[in-house]
Amino acid sequence: MREKVKALVTSRRWEQVIIGLIVVNAVTLGLETSSLVMAAIGDYLIAFDRFILGVFVVEIVLRIYAHGLRFFKDPWSIFDFTIVAISLVPASGPLSVMRALRILRVLRLISVVPSLRRVIGGLMAALPGMGSIVVLMALVFYVFAVMATKLFGASFPDWFGDLGKSIYTLFQIMTLESWSMGIVRPVMEVYPYSWLFFVPFILSTAFTVLNLFIGIIVSAMQEEHEAEADADRRAIHTEAEHILTEVRALRSEVQDLRAQLGK
Amino acid sequence: MREKVKALVTSRRWEQVIIGLIVVNAVTLGLETSSLVMAAIGDYLIAFDRFILGVFVVEIVLRIYAHGLRFFKDPWSIFDFTIVAISLVPASGPLSVMRALRILRVLRLISVVPSLRRVIGGLMAALPGMGSIVVLMALVFYVFAVMATKLFGASFPDWFGDLGKSIYTLFQIMTLESWSMGIVRPVMEVYPYSWLFFVPFILSTAFTVLNLFIGIIVSAMQEEHEAEADADRRAIHTEAEHILTEVRALRSEVQDLRAQLGK
Amino acid sequence: MREKVKALVTSRRWEQVIIGLIVVNAVTLGLETSSLVMAAIGDYLIAFDRFILGVFVVEIVLRIYAHGLRFFKDPWSIFDFTIVAISLVPASGPLSVMRALRILRVLRLISVVPSLRRVIGGLMAALPGMGSIVVLMALVFYVFAVMATKLFGASFPDWFGDLGKSIYTLFQIMTLESWSMGIVRPVMEVYPYSWLFFVPFILSTAFTVLNLFIGIIVSAMQEEHEAEADADRRAIHTEAEHILTEVRALRSEVQDLRAQLGK
Amino acid sequence: MREKVKALVTSRRWEQVIIGLIVVNAVTLGLETSSLVMAAIGDYLIAFDRFILGVFVVEIVLRIYAHGLRFFKDPWSIFDFTIVAISLVPASGPLSVMRALRILRVLRLISVVPSLRRVIGGLMAALPGMGSIVVLMALVFYVFAVMATKLFGASFPDWFGDLGKSIYTLFQIMTLESWSMGIVRPVMEVYPYSWLFFVPFILSTAFTVLNLFIGIIVSAMQEEHEAEADADRRAIHTEAEHILTEVRALRSEVQDLRAQLGK
Repeated sequence: MREKVKALVTSRRWEQVIIGLIVVNAVTLGLETSSLVMAAIGDYLIAFDRFILGVFVVEIVLRIYAHGLRFFKDPWSIFDFTIVAISLVPASGPLSVMRALRILRVLRLISVVPSLRRVIGGLMAALPGMGSIVVLMALVFYVFAVMATKLFGASFPDWFGDLGKSIYTLFQIMTLESWSMGIVRPVMEVYPYSWLFFVPFILSTAFTVLNLFIGIIVSAMQEEHEAEADADRRAIHTEAEHILTEVRALRSEVQDLRAQLGK
Repeated sequence: MREKVKALVTSRRWEQVIIGLIVVNAVTLGLETSSLVMAAIGDYLIAFDRFILGVFVVEIVLRIYAHGLRFFKDPWSIFDFTIVAISLVPASGPLSVMRALRILRVLRLISVVPSLRRVIGGLMAALPGMGSIVVLMALVFYVFAVMATKLFGASFPDWFGDLGKSIYTLFQIMTLESWSMGIVRPVMEVYPYSWLFFVPFILSTAFTVLNLFIGIIVSAMQEEHEAEADADRRAIHTEAEHILTEVRALRSEVQDLRAQLGK
Repeated sequence: MREKVKALVTSRRWEQVIIGLIVVNAVTLGLETSSLVMAAIGDYLIAFDRFILGVFVVEIVLRIYAHGLRFFKDPWSIFDFTIVAISLVPASGPLSVMRALRILRVLRLISVVPSLRRVIGGLMAALPGMGSIVVLMALVFYVFAVMATKLFGASFPDWFGDLGKSIYTLFQIMTLESWSMGIVRPVMEVYPYSWLFFVPFILSTAFTVLNLFIGIIVSAMQEEHEAEADADRRAIHTEAEHILTEVRALRSEVQDLRAQLGK
Repeated sequence: MREKVKALVTSRRWEQVIIGLIVVNAVTLGLETSSLVMAAIGDYLIAFDRFILGVFVVEIVLRIYAHGLRFFKDPWSIFDFTIVAISLVPASGPLSVMRALRILRVLRLISVVPSLRRVIGGLMAALPGMGSIVVLMALVFYVFAVMATKLFGASFPDWFGDLGKSIYTLFQIMTLESWSMGIVRPVMEVYPYSWLFFVPFILSTAFTVLNLFIGIIVSAMQEEHEAEADADRRAIHTEAEHILTEVRALRSEVQDLRAQLGK
């Protein structure tokens, strides 16, 4: 029985049905944003949405039944489980924001379509190599945010009033959005030397992001190269084997000659 | 007869005449934007423009006659055909915007000049490899746009009033233009936690664009390398052949010796 | 005695204690930015901060005692020394800004954690190669700043009033922040041809930054490649040695044969 | 006599004197931007500036005398000549802007310092490879500018009033500065579908710039690789030569043996 369910939920046809349902659901969730459409056929859309959710819940239950506890060892299964679970949270009162999260269900397309899963896998593979630089970046942000809060917090409470606001404002400055006309020029009117704080911040974050970026490119290249270098070494080895075979044949010929002469 | 026309429309001289006409037409279409010039010699410019259009129509007709239905199999021919067809649409009433599209004719320069055609070919060659990432990007945009419309649409109808407006605003945020001072700070005044929506959006689109970018660089590099690796392997093979020739000559020498001794 | 102190300050345990203290201190310095927390437990935080500073001073003194004058030859030791020294400057009167610099102590994490130290080392290693381009950039900035001050200083004293202001404004323009709507369009209303100054400036700095960037990528790649090329050459050498061993064995066989025949 | 002058103007010492004079002149030209300094020692600065200009004129004359007409074949000599010539134009009346161009003299540092000359040489070497993409970019700009002038010129004369204004505004949009909040949103209020014009423009220029960028990186890499691939092939050749020497020695040994047996 369990084997049959497993065969079903891992079959190509099942995958196609799920992809189809996700795409249709994506469209109906998109239509729900239009108040005109909602006024006309809103009830049907909501009913259909509940039906789809039901199908997804059944699918997850079947997959858990089929794979047992190993289901929770596959990160993509946990991804699917979390997304369906979010849709089940009652979206009322303070949690009304949950209604908007139902669209996250469309992201299940990533875990179902193999080529998308591979792209995300590639992105994730790049992450561990960036660990140290991300820690460094967090350190730089924390240090500059504490300083900004102490230095400018009193005069500019909207931008640097507390640690959270300072981090947000520094993130904005890092993206270079309105950093000068919007933030630094007004600050310089009160603290004329504040550019000594902001310009080094911009240069150091730009330099760190640049290095993050280069690190990813270099490691992506390296993978390509290793495959190629292996092929190169195999080619060299094959050629050398050819020569060795010939030389060994020659040697045995000479040995035969010696034996012949010995007689 | 058909062969003669074909020889004509694929001749080097014909190409140069067409390039010349396109460049002159580009200038006259540029002059048409000046009301001063139009007041002085506007009628001549328009007459000349019609003459050029006539030449282009004749050229396309000759090329279709020369190549037959195969004309519509070459993407560059379809490109030329479409551009000339656009110019023939009557530019009156609601279609008056068509008048402005006449300048697209200048883009025929791309299909005529070989080096430009090669550049565009190179850009196009990079596209298929980005398919999955573009689908992923579209998915991220759609999911975030539906959420933004539901969450912020009521309070900010100009920016997030419907799905189209949300997608446009998110595109603006992705380009980092006024994302904080212009959009997110005003939104945060109504929904203080909305940065939890926008900052992850910026980070995830930046990361995706970065990966798109790296993918193109790596695949451009790879092509270069493959050519080089082939040359390397050929070099190795040549050297190995040299050695093998020598070893085989030696072996035949030893075999001669053995035969000599056998006698 | 000195050996014992040296063994202590370079031990793994000592390193872990210092890392722990820096992290705790980072949190307490962060808490000090909140006036609510300061009102409640401010005295304890400040006392704790003094205690940590004391520990750091003792640590530096022990390390100087352990390593002697060689302490000042290691750039990371000078880094640690400077950061602790900054915290000891009395933060009163005109130097009250020094209070805010205490958070720099958290940067000691970089010199203590090996992986962070390696990242910074990598960034620093990229610097010398960029020397010429940085000088070129400085030259471009200086020349354009002097010109901007002379040309636009009288009409726009806030932006181009003196050399410092011009350099700051040109830096803003280089980051493309509000360069057109904020700066160049207003300037063009007074000097209609000023785009002849600003557009070349943007293009030349963008081109220089691009080259800086490419230089770093290429040199990062090159390092990777050199390691790989060495491995390749070693592989080639090993294969060649194999063949040579075989050929030499063959040769000694032939020599034995000759000797045998000579007898 | 001519040989002596040539030896002088190409000597290391002469180069150092010129570098020194340029640096001092850079400082004095910088000081001239300060009205305070000008009030105090302005006359001395201007006198000194004339003296330096005199030295530079003499230097150019000597170099022309030393090298003859070949002087005008070296692009760096023409660069120096042009810069000094600009300083000699009388800076009065409508040409008062010429006064500001005197600072360009500092750029002579590039032609005198070898490492800077090499950097610029490298930048210039990257240019020819980008020819086609630059032509393509110019074409895209021209086509979009003509269209923008025709479509939006009447309603937004400040931004799209004539071809020049349209090109400037499109350049601003390409740099993403205030493209949406500053330009496209206001335009969309009059022409709701104008995003169909601007978003493709942004995507196509971003894509073209990206390709320009990748082209430069790939060609920079390629140069590095070619040098390396050459070294690889040399290494392979050397190893193969070793083997061949050994095999040939063996062969001559076998030939000796045969000759010995023949006797």
